[in-house]
Amino acid sequence: MNSSIVFPDLARLVNPQSIALVGASDKADSIGFRTFENLTKYSQFQGRLDLVNPGRKEIGGRACVPTIRDLEAAPDVAILAVRADRVLESLRECGERGTRFTIVFTSGFGETGADGRAVEAEMRDIVQRTGMRIYGPNCPGLNNINGGLGMSFSPAWRIDRKPGPIGVATQGGGLGRSFMQAMDRGVGTGLWCSGGNEVDLEVSDYIHYMADAPDIEVIVTVLEGVRNGPRFMAAALHAARRGKPIVALKVGKSEYGVKAAQSHTAAIAGSAEINSAVFRELGIVEVDDIDEMIDAASMLARGKPTGREKIALYSFSGGTLALAADHVGIAKLELAKFAPHTLDALGAALPSYAAFDNPVDVTAEVLVDSALTDVTLKATAEDPNTDLVVVPIPVEYGRTTELLAQSMVKVQREVATPIVPVWMSDRSGAGQRILIEGGLMPMRSLRGAARALTRYIGYGRWLSKLRADWQPLGSATQKEAPSTVTLTEAEGKAVVARAGVPVPAGIVASSAHEAARAFETLGAAQVAMKVVSAAITHKTDVGGVRLGIASVAEARAAFEGICASVGAHHEPSVIEGVLVEPMLAKPFAEVVVGIHRDPVFGHVCTFGLGGVGIELFKDVSRRLLPLTPQSAREMVMETRCYQLLAGHRGQAAFDVDALVEVLVRLSDLVARHADRIEELEINPLAVRPQGQGVTALDAVLTLQQGTETLPW
Amino acid sequence: MNSSIVFPDLARLVNPQSIALVGASDKADSIGFRTFENLTKYSQFQGRLDLVNPGRKEIGGRACVPTIRDLEAAPDVAILAVRADRVLESLRECGERGTRFTIVFTSGFGETGADGRAVEAEMRDIVQRTGMRIYGPNCPGLNNINGGLGMSFSPAWRIDRKPGPIGVATQGGGLGRSFMQAMDRGVGTGLWCSGGNEVDLEVSDYIHYMADAPDIEVIVTVLEGVRNGPRFMAAALHAARRGKPIVALKVGKSEYGVKAAQSHTAAIAGSAEINSAVFRELGIVEVDDIDEMIDAASMLARGKPTGREKIALYSFSGGTLALAADHVGIAKLELAKFAPHTLDALGAALPSYAAFDNPVDVTAEVLVDSALTDVTLKATAEDPNTDLVVVPIPVEYGRTTELLAQSMVKVQREVATPIVPVWMSDRSGAGQRILIEGGLMPMRSLRGAARALTRYIGYGRWLSKLRADWQPLGSATQKEAPSTVTLTEAEGKAVVARAGVPVPAGIVASSAHEAARAFETLGAAQVAMKVVSAAITHKTDVGGVRLGIASVAEARAAFEGICASVGAHHEPSVIEGVLVEPMLAKPFAEVVVGIHRDPVFGHVCTFGLGGVGIELFKDVSRRLLPLTPQSAREMVMETRCYQLLAGHRGQAAFDVDALVEVLVRLSDLVARHADRIEELEINPLAVRPQGQGVTALDAVLTLQQGTETLPW
Repeated sequence: MNSSIVFPDLARLVNPQSIALVGASDKADSIGFRTFENLTKYSQFQGRLDLVNPGRKEIGGRACVPTIRDLEAAPDVAILAVRADRVLESLRECGERGTRFTIVFTSGFGETGADGRAVEAEMRDIVQRTGMRIYGPNCPGLNNINGGLGMSFSPAWRIDRKPGPIGVATQGGGLGRSFMQAMDRGVGTGLWCSGGNEVDLEVSDYIHYMADAPDIEVIVTVLEGVRNGPRFMAAALHAARRGKPIVALKVGKSEYGVKAAQSHTAAIAGSAEINSAVFRELGIVEVDDIDEMIDAASMLARGKPTGREKIALYSFSGGTLALAADHVGIAKLELAKFAPHTLDALGAALPSYAAFDNPVDVTAEVLVDSALTDVTLKATAEDPNTDLVVVPIPVEYGRTTELLAQSMVKVQREVATPIVPVWMSDRSGAGQRILIEGGLMPMRSLRGAARALTRYIGYGRWLSKLRADWQPLGSATQKEAPSTVTLTEAEGKAVVARAGVPVPAGIVASSAHEAARAFETLGAAQVAMKVVSAAITHKTDVGGVRLGIASVAEARAAFEGICASVGAHHEPSVIEGVLVEPMLAKPFAEVVVGIHRDPVFGHVCTFGLGGVGIELFKDVSRRLLPLTPQSAREMVMETRCYQLLAGHRGQAAFDVDALVEVLVRLSDLVARHADRIEELEINPLAVRPQGQGVTALDAVLTLQQGTETLPW
Repeated sequence: MNSSIVFPDLARLVNPQSIALVGASDKADSIGFRTFENLTKYSQFQGRLDLVNPGRKEIGGRACVPTIRDLEAAPDVAILAVRADRVLESLRECGERGTRFTIVFTSGFGETGADGRAVEAEMRDIVQRTGMRIYGPNCPGLNNINGGLGMSFSPAWRIDRKPGPIGVATQGGGLGRSFMQAMDRGVGTGLWCSGGNEVDLEVSDYIHYMADAPDIEVIVTVLEGVRNGPRFMAAALHAARRGKPIVALKVGKSEYGVKAAQSHTAAIAGSAEINSAVFRELGIVEVDDIDEMIDAASMLARGKPTGREKIALYSFSGGTLALAADHVGIAKLELAKFAPHTLDALGAALPSYAAFDNPVDVTAEVLVDSALTDVTLKATAEDPNTDLVVVPIPVEYGRTTELLAQSMVKVQREVATPIVPVWMSDRSGAGQRILIEGGLMPMRSLRGAARALTRYIGYGRWLSKLRADWQPLGSATQKEAPSTVTLTEAEGKAVVARAGVPVPAGIVASSAHEAARAFETLGAAQVAMKVVSAAITHKTDVGGVRLGIASVAEARAAFEGICASVGAHHEPSVIEGVLVEPMLAKPFAEVVVGIHRDPVFGHVCTFGLGGVGIELFKDVSRRLLPLTPQSAREMVMETRCYQLLAGHRGQAAFDVDALVEVLVRLSDLVARHADRIEELEINPLAVRPQGQGVTALDAVLTLQQGTETLPW
């Protein structure tokens, strides 16, 4: 990836020493007044605050200057609370005055259509010219909860203020606010950046900042589109290397969602499959809804997972514990096997009818005895094989659930193992409040809890495998698709052969006679013959392929036959010749390797087994380029069809080592020529039995127009 | 299914005219006292209540009799609030006194082990002898909320009383109570039967009763095991034919869940796959968690779906609507295409920047104007193409969400189209309370809402296809698997051939000479030769199969070769001969048809395409026997591999009509001999091109021992 990607230092945006509020007002309920109140009455801001308003001498006892030019000093942050038609001029003035950052609340720009987008282009010009950075427009402001500073016009600022280790980076404001309100379930958010139309600063910048911010441990983001893939990937990897997980909700996974998101923000949605694959590869925890985001983020804020966590279940309802065990099993998580001394301790404390060999069913009778609950819950949490204790609570049960909650909060203070409550009931109660206030955020359903734990543990597993030096190629175009040229099969095979990928020893024949000579020269029992033509992509569809040719006479006849068949579909002049190749001896497995340039993230490799695996079951894996031997092997092994390669039902294994090597070579080839290769597909790549290597039986190479004659 | 299945009339259990409370007490906090209070102070019971307690003359001003024998008249319901060691005696006395139903709260029986199970067998004896029916033991009682009668010792009875159209039938109490507390989200439950250990009355009985109860519209059930499959299926079909959906949560879908459920109730879990397939076929809406159950049940309580519902999305946050549209798309639901007059109405009412071509984004500014909200929400709900309006509410927004909720409740009174709120925030508020009190139960997440709508619409689709006369075979054994005998391939093929299933014209040869003769007689270009032996199930594994035999000499050699190969693994005496069959000309598709007796539900047919489809992707469909032409076709079409049969990527289609016909014939064969056929597998069944029929290339028939010589 282009190492020239730099991120701005947002320290003075998030924690400014001076702020100028442009459009400050004393008119109740105006944006300017609400912002003024948020900055003064409801913030703990210690820096200098200047007010700009041409029509007021003072507001709330503070002096006002008429214009930005009149400011005594350039502010770290200017906040524009002005009408849309005054925004550009104000931005110019802020830029010229030397302002570092300007926050623009005002809407009515890119989201309204072409005119608005033109104004946004002018905003970017100001950034270019003056070096001032813009946050917005069409945004709800910036909420620095941990710092006690609300650069926001929202009346919610004074309410939604539970500090915490989670940073939130969004584009639109609605879903971010929804996340903020999870504070009522005990989730503390330290910083919320919501950059609206993102004419300049964008989600990637906030993620990068949060990765370095000492008060932020987990980053969550809601995206309607990734504006700049390479920057986003760089920010994500930066966070990963700081050990800070990112939880992402990406809108636009279905046609309906893409259409609705576009009519909302005009962001480019990109391919949902590629997007999810890139997230997975970068360790970004992808979620589908706000509640899942809350569960995953709050879980990740509770500790650093190793990826090997085993679970104990503890509750007072046998049916609920059985259902919880089911969810653990369905999610393919693992129940802890208690150590003998744990079982002894539980057995000694619990009545004879209680079942406790994980799940621990203490029965409702026990719960009224806090001491017993303390002892048994602690024994469970301290079991050496237990990494997480999940406590499903099916009902609000008055004093019983109150005592249980107290016990959980108490024991959690004494043990490191996270205790995770699941408050399943729609009824709130004292127990629930005790958990929330005690820092044990209750999940709301067993399925939700299992999902959050899966994500938590999965992040740990990913982090343990993170390679310190890997960088994605980042070969995104970020613009319209270029014109392309597709090489012939023979040309394509020549290029991949030069890169170290075995291909059949083929000869291009220009006549029936040459085809017969080629058959003799190759000396194979059987040959395949395929039309060579840059104009034909689907050779079989036009009768351009013959297989199993076993004699000189057949070779002649096949040449004539191919010319006749193809001639019925195309001008004969498109036929550049017929490729004669030895047929590969069976057995071999046919896999498909495709590398294409994704416009958002750059080159991505797709792997799968030929036939129904890909066509009916979409059984493919994807990785960003460049592949490493490790990532190439992982992508082969994570397809379900891998079982067929590995030696299915007692059959011999195919040469997976050679396959992995060739995947890396193809990746290297594309990486070396990332500026010209748009797409490379090997379909099929024949994988022969172990030790016998692989052979590319076809190769389609698509280049940017004008680059096809450049040397390799 | 055995039409002799009868269900008891539970009218006098649910609405008794007389109750005897055995073990009535005046000791505060005792079971006997709490039940007494529930029956008197907290119920509207108008019938006769007798109290039984040998140590009291009166309790709470009501006379007590010392024993059950002293009751003046036999009660409809006796409630036992006595110690475990007094239960059997009390049950005997109740039975002898002519009591109709006895509710047993007491625990300490089957759930504790073998001793307890022996006591339960004695309870069943009493039922047999006296005709009295038992509800329990180990149960929390029966809550008739709509009737205002709590036959329960739970202090929750006085709280959890929101009448409504939902009936709840559970075994254990915890998860049922969790569902009851959904009343705090506006879900009204009219009747909750929770039969504990189910020594006699069981969930199926309650479902059957609720299907007939005029005050119940939707039935929900939590099952740890289906005790009697045929009775359960009969009850479920009865409910379906009354148009009452069943929503079921089945515990025990994973190994962990099965183990935990067994240690809790000792119920038989059965196969999760079969269980889910049977539920699907019977129209039972299967859910995985309590919150999903609440969402699905409350949605189904709002109206009768047609299966063709289209959705409108309405809210004030563009990002939230885009995410909601995504969930609609991912769930493969359909957004409504608004009629022109709807678009005109919305356009006239909304500001120019609002997007409203479904999703309808009215923007937060509009919401403060109730009249505008009323008009636009009503226009959306009255759109002729809209069947459901979903209103996602991402945040509690004070006055704004309050006004929106008021508008929703108001408009819902004027339109039939269900308006479905999704309260996504963890913050409660006035708006949420208005929705709950106004009868519009808020879903809690977009994913949850999409899932509930999918289930709602799916139930409508299923109901529209319900066949009026179909009954499952119900050939369950309900006991240990019998000893079995497997017929040879030749015998198996003979049986299916007699049932009208085409098989190759095979000849069994006993010598190399006979094999050569058979080759000549068959006159096929190529033959297959397979060892015949009742002792060998996997013929290929022991070298017992030769394919592509094309000459007399090869046939001789193959016979000798098979005998030699098999002889290396088995005594030569197990070889009963070699089956010689013509090879089927290509092309044909290979499918697998298996029918086996499930111990809980009886014979089930499994269908899939041979090879990776079944092996790697578990791409199979299942149906209860008997198959009908319609259900057989559905089961073929619902596999993803159906695409290959239907003519994949321009290839010719295979003979699906013949396949469907043969599936029905196989089903009829098994149904005629359901008492002896344990399993029948055709693997593969070759499906030839359209019009050319199918051929069973193998047939494995497994019979109950002792029935193999009976005539067919």
